[in-house]
Amino acid sequence: VPPPMSKKKNSFCLDTHSLVSGFCALKKNKKEKDMVEFKVIEKEKLTIVKFELTTGVVSPEELKKFKTPQVNLTKGVIISGRGPIWLHSFLAHEYHPAVWVGHLDPRLNGAVIVQSHTKNIKEGDIIQLG
Amino acid sequence: VPPPMSKKKNSFCLDTHSLVSGFCALKKNKKEKDMVEFKVIEKEKLTIVKFELTTGVVSPEELKKFKTPQVNLTKGVIISGRGPIWLHSFLAHEYHPAVWVGHLDPRLNGAVIVQSHTKNIKEGDIIQLG
Repeated sequence: VPPPMSKKKNSFCLDTHSLVSGFCALKKNKKEKDMVEFKVIEKEKLTIVKFELTTGVVSPEELKKFKTPQVNLTKGVIISGRGPIWLHSFLAHEYHPAVWVGHLDPRLNGAVIVQSHTKNIKEGDIIQLG
Repeated sequence: VPPPMSKKKNSFCLDTHSLVSGFCALKKNKKEKDMVEFKVIEKEKLTIVKFELTTGVVSPEELKKFKTPQVNLTKGVIISGRGPIWLHSFLAHEYHPAVWVGHLDPRLNGAVIVQSHTKNIKEGDIIQLG
């Protein structure tokens, strides 16, 4: 039985050719160092910032590195993604200048507002996603 | 088989006597309306704000009602508790004026800093709890 590929082996892949070229190519394309990838979906009145943990995990150290995507701050921001509470909370703070900020809660099929600078939308409101 | 006690029945309990007096008394003592209860633990350099969902759940509506405990803002604040992301994030925003704010991550046996106003402590730092 061959040993499972170690992380060391994976990083070796990045610099040289390897027999497992498919895997390495994938790693290369995904920029191994980015544990968090963002997708920005702009709607009429809000922007969804969806993150994905490329390896399924994220370390707090990552907060020191990554750049959050710029969004239109005159709209609301919905943060979406499967990840730790502190990552969501960090992002909410990053987007604090936006009109309002909410977190997608899949159980509610909507986003719960946690910060707002507009009278129409209050903390605790749920923005349904169609 | 008797039907399961409905919510209506429970609120009836609050106003009058009932055969299920033990249950009603419990509800009374716990103040049925408070879905979130707080416990504040002040340490030398930080305050732990620990919440508990008295019924195991919380609705976003609750954010409109509850008063977060006042803390010493010259210290850091660690938010702790099992609950939805939006509740943690809401609390982090409430405590934004504190020197720093972090969320307890039981997997890391410490709190991950998500906001800081001091140079000594940065976002992404982990404050270990002894």
